[in-house]
Order: sequence, then structure tokens, then C-alpha cells
Amino acid sequence: MVKVVQLREMQAVIDQLDATEAIEQGFVAYSNNQVVVPPVGELLFDDPPGDTHIKYGYIKNQDSYVIKIASGFYNNPQLGLSSSSGLMLVFSQKTGMLQTILLDEGYLTNVRTALAGRIAAKYLQPWSVEGIGILGTGIQAGMQLNALQKVCDCRKVHVWGRTPEHAEKYRQKMQDQGFEVRLEETPARVAAASNLIVSTTPSTVPLLQAGDIRPGTLITAVGSDTPDKQELDPEILGKADVLVADSLSQCRERGEISKALAAGAIAEEGILELGRVIARPDLAALQADSICVVDLTGVAVQDVQIASAVCAALD
Amino acid sequence: MVKVVQLREMQAVIDQLDATEAIEQGFVAYSNNQVVVPPVGELLFDDPPGDTHIKYGYIKNQDSYVIKIASGFYNNPQLGLSSSSGLMLVFSQKTGMLQTILLDEGYLTNVRTALAGRIAAKYLQPWSVEGIGILGTGIQAGMQLNALQKVCDCRKVHVWGRTPEHAEKYRQKMQDQGFEVRLEETPARVAAASNLIVSTTPSTVPLLQAGDIRPGTLITAVGSDTPDKQELDPEILGKADVLVADSLSQCRERGEISKALAAGAIAEEGILELGRVIARPDLAALQADSICVVDLTGVAVQDVQIASAVCAALD
Repeated sequence: MVKVVQLREMQAVIDQLDATEAIEQGFVAYSNNQVVVPPVGELLFDDPPGDTHIKYGYIKNQDSYVIKIASGFYNNPQLGLSSSSGLMLVFSQKTGMLQTILLDEGYLTNVRTALAGRIAAKYLQPWSVEGIGILGTGIQAGMQLNALQKVCDCRKVHVWGRTPEHAEKYRQKMQDQGFEVRLEETPARVAAASNLIVSTTPSTVPLLQAGDIRPGTLITAVGSDTPDKQELDPEILGKADVLVADSLSQCRERGEISKALAAGAIAEEGILELGRVIARPDLAALQADSICVVDLTGVAVQDVQIASAVCAALD
Repeated sequence: MVKVVQLREMQAVIDQLDATEAIEQGFVAYSNNQVVVPPVGELLFDDPPGDTHIKYGYIKNQDSYVIKIASGFYNNPQLGLSSSSGLMLVFSQKTGMLQTILLDEGYLTNVRTALAGRIAAKYLQPWSVEGIGILGTGIQAGMQLNALQKVCDCRKVHVWGRTPEHAEKYRQKMQDQGFEVRLEETPARVAAASNLIVSTTPSTVPLLQAGDIRPGTLITAVGSDTPDKQELDPEILGKADVLVADSLSQCRERGEISKALAAGAIAEEGILELGRVIARPDLAALQADSICVVDLTGVAVQDVQIASAVCAALD
């Protein structure tokens, strides 16, 4: 019998469940070539404008495989609907039978993305975090900050957002959760006051320049997941002592690394994959003044692992 | 709220619902380039051996789009499970929101495949059908014969199957449904006694030769849907007066037409697409002695249309 799980049930188990380790194992398996991830399927719509992406894959010799469907229909807010929606389907790797339908409306993607940010900080945060910088004020801006708490004691937060009202709302919300939040007028001001920066915007022009970054800083770039988006000037990556990709093959095509490669600011040889760092943290040993950039474009193995973890918790 | 529909509910409405017209309209839209069908997604598994295919698409300016997931895990019968399984997901083309989950376990694919056979006969059957020939004794062998009844009065059936016990079972079952069924020892005997032949086997070698076919015969080839399967000798297609493909682009790659093209027995210029014949039946006007071959490889627009028809009937 197929189990159908509603969003609220997932939200209830996620709070008790820490999927960090499952996601870490997923990245390690991915970097060890134990993961099958075919090219993303895509359906495009003109009127109204929208797109649907189908991501799917599995870790070899595990119990399940996962197909994720995620849509963005950009006129939806005019109808009072969220522009994004989606679900995950979990099948048995032994029989092909559908086991669980996770009607998560995109929630699990947000969770697994935030956990990747946590993992980046766990392995690559500076010796001492003096301020957390957040670019953007959307869902990931909040979830990334929350996700950091399990691996980082700092509660001083510097935020920049394009829209002042959204920034103020974000400030109040995160302050209510126990953070000391300051709004900054520019991304450069955020970087001047922080040395663990998470960029979560859909920007298509660089928000930070190389001169803005302090020695001993980690920048986790979450926002840029398509070929046209970009949050960091390529020179920041050129200057970085440690440069990490969630997926080398994906980062060649999209995200900050693709832009820096195209600009000639970096060479592919210097890039580490996140799964390799997790398996052998000494590969990315940081000095007190090291600058590190982690480029997160989102890998289907994260979907596989978060869906499997939720299913196990619900069983 | 997402609606989840079980197999038995679909079976109940299919009996009252005639989706023939919807499928015909789908073929016409497809041949008029009004259908978006991206390449099929595929996941392959080694141990146990299995494959999962993701077919998806939409007719422009309609209400919904459909994603179909179909799996074949060939060791399943050893576990008492069907080797095939699957489901269809119906989304709004206006908002991207998931509307209905059809847990059809592959049933709707069987229905839409049988209806394509009915449509082929409706437009291309011989002037007078003296016997219906069926190659194979599986699910499609039964469903195709049943589907023909709405467009053809003949109840005399000649059947060949590889396994005598299966053939005898098939004979009894279809006889109980009012057919006069005779088992034949070879496919050639079937062809000698029939002039509306439906081939439904997974054969990889030709079962019928050009000399077997009587003048004034329609052959609907359903079994061959992959590059390696083949039921008809290419010379049959070479000899045909009318040659029809459900999808020209797909039949270039798989099915009987791909084999006949590779053998040099036919040229692409002579092939008609089924949607064009439905829109203008005069394009394929048959003489009393015309031989016609219809190659059905299965097109995603059929899935779109059967799923939409079922959803409308359930509303």
C-alpha cells in the first residue's frame, strides 16, 4: 500500500530528526561515484510562464530511489498561491514499487539545502566566527541561519536585503528566535562585520567584491543554482585558499564556480568536492586567515537522502 | 487538495468512459506539433535488474500536464509481485500545482495502448474483416481484441502464442467473452485465416513474413516498442500500400519501422503519421486489396489524454 504523507506530518518529524549525517553520507557517496543521477528533466511553459523540473536518482545498493518534481509558476502569487510547489516519490530499489508519496510542496528541498549550508560550516568555518553575514531575507536566509546553530555558537548576525521592509521583517523574526540581528545597508558592510557569510539571493550580478572579504572568512553561496545567477565576483573565488563544490560536474555548468571558470579567475584542478572534504577533512585544512568559498548548487543525492530519512522516521 | 485515486476507482470509470475520442484528439494535436514531449527520463538498475522510465508532456493551451512513471523489475514474479508498476501525476498547466495522483500500476498505459489499436482499426481496417488474428496471449492480446469490438463486427479470432498453456487459457477466457477462438500452430497460419492482425508479443525476431500476408489486410504492430524488439519482417512493410506510424520521430528509433528503414525496405517519405490519418482519413484511402501496417510504439500524448479523461470522469 502506498503511503501518502502531508506537509504537516513532515514538518513534525523534521524537528525531531537530524538528517545532517544522512546528507553528509549522500555527499560522500556522490563523490565516490556511488550515486546514479541522470540529467534533470524539464518542462517549460509560456503562458502563464512556468517550469517544472524532474530530478531523480539513487545511491547504489540502498533500499530506495527517489524522483522529485518541483515547479515554479511565477504568476501564482497573483492568484494567492505560492510560486513554487512540488513533491517527492520514494520507490523500492529492489522491486520498483512506489512506497511513499511525500507531498512536501518544496519543503524538503529547503531543508536539505539548509543542511548543506550547515555541513559546509561544520567542516569549513573559520577558527573563530565573529559575526554571521546573511545576504537575502527569504526562506533560505532564515533556514540557513537556523541550521548553523548546531555547529556554530555565534548569535551576532548582519543582514542585507534588497527590500527594506522584508529585511526589517527578517530582523524581527530572527531576533524573536534569539539572534542579535543588525541590518546593513550594503553587502560590503555585511562582509566587513562577518566572517561566516551565507549568500541566499537570486541575484544575477555580483553582490560582493574581492576587496570586501576579510581574511579568515567562509562564504557559502546558496543562491546561484542556474547558469545566469551569480552572487560573488569571480575574483573572490580566485582569491580563495579553499574552493569547494557540492558537485564538480554541476558547478561546471551553473553557480559561482561556472562564472569564475568562464572568467579565467580559477582553474578546475584547485576545486575540491564537498563529499571528499567530509570524508577527509584534512584535505581542506584552514589557516587562521584562510578564505574559503563553498558553492552549493543542489544535488539530487540530497533529495534522495532527505526523503529516505523522512520515510525512516515516519515508519 | 491533492486527490489520490486507486486502481479500482479507475477501472470503474474506464468501463463507462470512452476515451477513444480523447486519444484521437491527442494524436491529431501531436501530428500538428501542438504537443510538448521532452526526451524520456530513464533510471537503470543492475541488481536486481530493473528500469524506470519517466514520460511527460502536455498539449499546449490545455488544462493539465502529465508525468508518468513506469517501472519494470524482472525478478518481481519470484516475489509474487507484478514485474511492472507505475503511476501518473496530473498537474495544472496554469499553476504547476499537483492535482491528482493516479495509482494505476500501469493499467492506464494498457488502456491507452489498446485504444490506439482500436483507432488504427477504425480508420484503416480492410473493407471486410473475415477473421481477427492475434499474436501473443498476454494482457494486450486480450485488451486489443476487446477494444476492436466497438469498431469491427467480426468475432472469429485466430490466435498464436509461444506457450501452449497460455494460449489455451487465452482461448477459454476470450471464448467466455463471446468470441469464436481458434488456436493456430504458427503465426503464418494466423495470417492465412485473418485479415485484421494485431501483434502483441515482445519478440525480437520476425514472426510474420511477407508471403504470409493476404491482400486486403491490416496489421497493427503493438509489441515492438524498443530498438531491439521486432515482430514483422521488413519486407511486409516494404510491400504495404499504406504505412502508418504513431510518432514518426519515435518510429525512426524503435519499432517495426526503424527495422524496415535500417533494412532499406522502406523510405521515410512514404510513412504517414496516425494523427494525420485521423484528421484526414482520405490520405490513407484503402482499396479492396490494400495491405496496411500501423506501427504503435506508444506516445506520451496518449498518457496525457487518458489521464485527463479519467480525471474529468472522476470529477
